[in-house]
Formats: sequence, structure tokens, C-alpha cells
Amino acid sequence: MGKVEGSAEDRLIARYFRPLASHPGALGLADDAAILVPPPGCDLVLKADAIIGDVHFFPEDPADAIARKALRVNLSDLAAKGAKPLGFLLSLALPGGSDDAWLASFADGLHADAQLYGCPLLGGDTDRTPGPAMVSIAAFGTVPHGGMVRRSGAKPGDCVLVSGMIGDAALGLKLRREPGAAARYRLEPREREHLLARYLVPEPRLALSETIRLHASAAMDVSDGLAGDLAKLCGASGVSADIEIEKVPFSDAAKRMIAADADLRELAVTGGDDYEIVCAVPTEKRDAFCTAALAAGVAVTEIGRIVVGRAAPKFRDRNGRLLEFAHPSFSHF
Amino acid sequence: MGKVEGSAEDRLIARYFRPLASHPGALGLADDAAILVPPPGCDLVLKADAIIGDVHFFPEDPADAIARKALRVNLSDLAAKGAKPLGFLLSLALPGGSDDAWLASFADGLHADAQLYGCPLLGGDTDRTPGPAMVSIAAFGTVPHGGMVRRSGAKPGDCVLVSGMIGDAALGLKLRREPGAAARYRLEPREREHLLARYLVPEPRLALSETIRLHASAAMDVSDGLAGDLAKLCGASGVSADIEIEKVPFSDAAKRMIAADADLRELAVTGGDDYEIVCAVPTEKRDAFCTAALAAGVAVTEIGRIVVGRAAPKFRDRNGRLLEFAHPSFSHF
Repeated sequence: MGKVEGSAEDRLIARYFRPLASHPGALGLADDAAILVPPPGCDLVLKADAIIGDVHFFPEDPADAIARKALRVNLSDLAAKGAKPLGFLLSLALPGGSDDAWLASFADGLHADAQLYGCPLLGGDTDRTPGPAMVSIAAFGTVPHGGMVRRSGAKPGDCVLVSGMIGDAALGLKLRREPGAAARYRLEPREREHLLARYLVPEPRLALSETIRLHASAAMDVSDGLAGDLAKLCGASGVSADIEIEKVPFSDAAKRMIAADADLRELAVTGGDDYEIVCAVPTEKRDAFCTAALAAGVAVTEIGRIVVGRAAPKFRDRNGRLLEFAHPSFSHF
Repeated sequence: MGKVEGSAEDRLIARYFRPLASHPGALGLADDAAILVPPPGCDLVLKADAIIGDVHFFPEDPADAIARKALRVNLSDLAAKGAKPLGFLLSLALPGGSDDAWLASFADGLHADAQLYGCPLLGGDTDRTPGPAMVSIAAFGTVPHGGMVRRSGAKPGDCVLVSGMIGDAALGLKLRREPGAAARYRLEPREREHLLARYLVPEPRLALSETIRLHASAAMDVSDGLAGDLAKLCGASGVSADIEIEKVPFSDAAKRMIAADADLRELAVTGGDDYEIVCAVPTEKRDAFCTAALAAGVAVTEIGRIVVGRAAPKFRDRNGRLLEFAHPSFSHF
């Protein structure tokens, strides 16, 4: 037992991970720690989230996709908090079977996203594990001092908006788990691919980050299902919400599955892994928010209003009937 | 599959981890990210290191000891870099069998050390894992701007000093693995306990942090064995070292085992998990370094000199004979 950092690990790090460590404070991954000189006038926003094989991804998923998902679930939080990425630390636990090809693919995926999102590797460690692969990332971003967007700022009357499409990932996971499902729901191949891809590699909405910071009163990323995460935002803000389920944006693929089985609408709004953003925006800022989102190339949809109250957000159908969810949010505990 | 953060996890976090989140930027662990307002004039020092069951600890180890080890291995790096702790992020992956008593003990251990070392919990996440427990920590510290102590500053002529005692943890691990070993080496019960405790929970040398920052030309913590880690420091500095093995500080318990089996001296200087500090100190600063270390209550011992060269550090016995190590450093890769 002991920490894995002998010369073989040094070579592994030099070969696969040093190219990602473009930040000068990473010291080429050749020291024991990294240095960050915080930009003047900025606060740091810190987030740590891990993904584990057989829990958050399938062990047979492509290694580059696993790497991207691990980084993106953290970047999704930075986006929701209005932060600009600065860099990340990586703790990687590898099962015995992870060979050079796997590592090369993993590092390629991570490198591509580190460049795409301007979030270089600062440091970390690599270990062997007798369990499944685990990728633990701590990501850092910046906001102007005092500018981090909280869960807790929503006010009655604010509009509730979401980015992108809701439910794709949960439905994509259902397709992964039920090989015959795509045929049963008569999905086109591209629809099936769309849902599978949305589960495999989420899209962190960093393009929306500044817009959220400038206009949202409260925001968080949707990782455990829209219903449950909006309930958390409302709980932190001391408010409730009225949501029109007809307005929740679903992709064509999701719509086709829901049309075939109405129960899947509940899965779509309560299942995890969307990595979209739900936020509250004061009505007077809604137009500016939508204009800026359009300019940033991210679809946003108004789905309801923040209201007075302490109850869980209400989801209503087109007839104003209240929907009840058996499991409003994902949890293992 | 999905992120674990339903209401059951919220309750788990509120019960066990919120008491540790005394830093205002942790937002009571009630938001998605933490906020750090960096102290003016300071650089941040960042380190991430994970420990895994059956790799870095025994699954049956007390949960509070596992928590302490996870935090301390990171604090050990901050100490070696001359940094003062600021806070940490935690990613905790729990096997199915981890019950409330385990979690309560884990949180107690972490809480005690967070207070002892002034390093509050800032945020993180909790997941179930089908594998062994994994505790992944990212720790942050501060140094005055430009003040982080690197591996790379050692100069020929500098004294090589180590903190505390070397080899206890590797010998303690040997006792854990070989139930009859303590009797075979005729260890007193308190000697056996000493070695086992040194493996179970390391002592981060934060008391020495400022002394290192003020006086050392290069430093790192000894986590993979003195011989291998000193080789890394020398390699980064472009120098070599001459070490007198007779001067390497061993505890009475370690001395007794080495007296019974001379081969164990090699294990003591090449085995991992010491979490002591090895550093290079210019001769003109040696007295000030030793005086400050004494005042800080940490034993330090001069074990040799930095010399010109690119070869691995040489360890010599009392007759000047060169020692050769079969495995100078721990590595799994």
C-alpha cells in the first residue's frame, strides 16, 4: 500500500497528462502542488464532483467520453454559478485492466475539453483501485467579487427558465439499460443516437455563464432531475414555483418516447444527468436574459413562475391539473 | 445511475458534514459550489490526493482514522510547500455497507482534524460505490505571493534535513500484514503500537510550514519513501545528494526491528507513508531553520548534503560504503 507516484507513474503523468497542464501554476505537474495567483477583484468558485464506473457511467463507455463527462459535470456547476473556468485538479483511480490505449483515449478526451472550455489541468494524482474506475475532479472558476449566483436568490414573480432540453439523458440511460427499447418506441436511429449521446457526454452551459451572472436571481444546474433540483432552488430561496409541464422543452426524440408512453414524461422531469441550467430571472430582466442567451447560442425556455410559499414546486398539465411524481429526485441514500 | 444528491443525501450532508463547514464560503453546504475570497497578496497552493480502501488503508480501519489520513496526506503537501491551510473539498465514495455509525465516526475524525489544522470543509459530494471506499480530497492553502517552496530550488552545498522519524509507517504496515511479526522482532507493546499508529494516521508537519518557507531552498513531503522522494527533489533541482544512513532518524521501535533484521533498514528508507518532510537548507540558514523547528516542536535531523551531479542520491553507511536499494521508491505502475 502507499501512494502511487514512483517513476512509472511519473512517466505515465508525463506522457498522458502533462500536455493538459498548460497553466503556468501547474508547474508541468513536476511539483507536489499547484499555484494559483487569483485574478485581482475576483472570487474563486470551487466545486468537486466524482463519477464512478457502474454508478455514473458504464465501464465499457469510451474512455474519452468518461473523461469528458467527469470534467463537464463540474463545469456545469461553474456555469450555473456564473463562473468562468480557471482550472481543475484530477484524482484518477484506475482498475487493473486500464491499458495504455484506455489512458491515451482518456487523456485525449480530457485534453480536448480542457482546451474547449479554457480549463487546464492544474494537478492531481493517479492510483490503482481494486474497484471500478473513479474520476474525481475539483474545478475552479472566477466571478467578479460577490458575483457568484446562488440557489437562494429567487423571488416570487421571477420567471423560471431552463436551458436546452430536459429529460434526454434519463431517457438515453433507459435505452442503454433496455436494449429493445429504441425499437419499442419506434425511434429513428438519429433520435436514439441523440438520447444516448446526451447521457454519455453532457453539454456544460458555460456559454450562458455570464448571462446567468448578469440577469438571474438564482440558478443551479439540473443534475438530479428538474423537479427535484427546482425544489432545492426553491427551498434555498424560501419560495415555491408553478411550472407548466407543456412548456418544459423536450427534444423530438424525447417527445416520441413520451407520446408512446405517457409515464416517461415523469422520468424526463425527474431523472438525472440533464446538466442543463434552471434559473429564476426577474421579469424585468427576462428579455435581456433571452436576448443574451440567443446571442450565446443556447436555447432557453420559460417554464413557469416563482410563487410565494414553502411547498415543493407544482407541475401542472394543460388543464391546470397538478401532477404528482413518485420520485421527484434521484438519490442513492 | 446518476449523481447522488437527493433529499436523503441532503440529510446525510446536513447531519454529518455541515458541522465541518465552518468557512463562510462553504455556504453551509447548501449551494452547488463554494466561494473563496483569496486573501490579498497571497497565492493559493492547491493539492488533490485520494486514498482508497485496500490500497492506502485497510477497509476495517476505524472510520475516523481513514478520514484523518485522507485529509492529512494533503495537509502534508501543504506543509512541505510552506503553505497555511485554507480549506478543502471532499469527494466521498461509500460502499453499500457503510452505516450511520461509520459515517458518524468518519465525520468526527474529519471534524477534529479540520479544527486542529484550521482547514474547514468547503464542499464536495457523496456517492455510493460498488468498489472500496474512496476519499478524494482537494486541499487549498496560502503563501505570500511567490512564496511556495518548490522541489526545484536545491543547490550544491545545501544541507539535507528531514522532519520526525523515517520508516515507521512502512514498518507499521509490515506489522499489519504479518500478524506474527511484532513477536518475532521482540517489540514492546508500546513500540508495536507506535509503528501501527504511524501507519494508520500520519502527522502533517504544518507546524514546520513557515520555517520551511523562510529557510528551505527546496522541500517536499516524504510519501513514497525517503530515497525515492529525495531523488525526485534532486532531479527537479538538477543536483544529487550524499546521505549518511547512520544519520537518518529512526524511532526506537524501528531501530529494534532493524537490529533484528538489517534488511529492514532498506524498507525504512524506501517504504512509503512517512509523511515527513525532506528539504534542502542553505548552510547559512541551517541554524535558523533548526532553532525555528525546535520552537515549533518538530524534531529535524540533518542527514547529508546536496552535491553537484545528476545521479540518484547516494546513501552511505558508516564506512562510506554505498548502499544499493532494490526498489528505491513505491510505485503501482
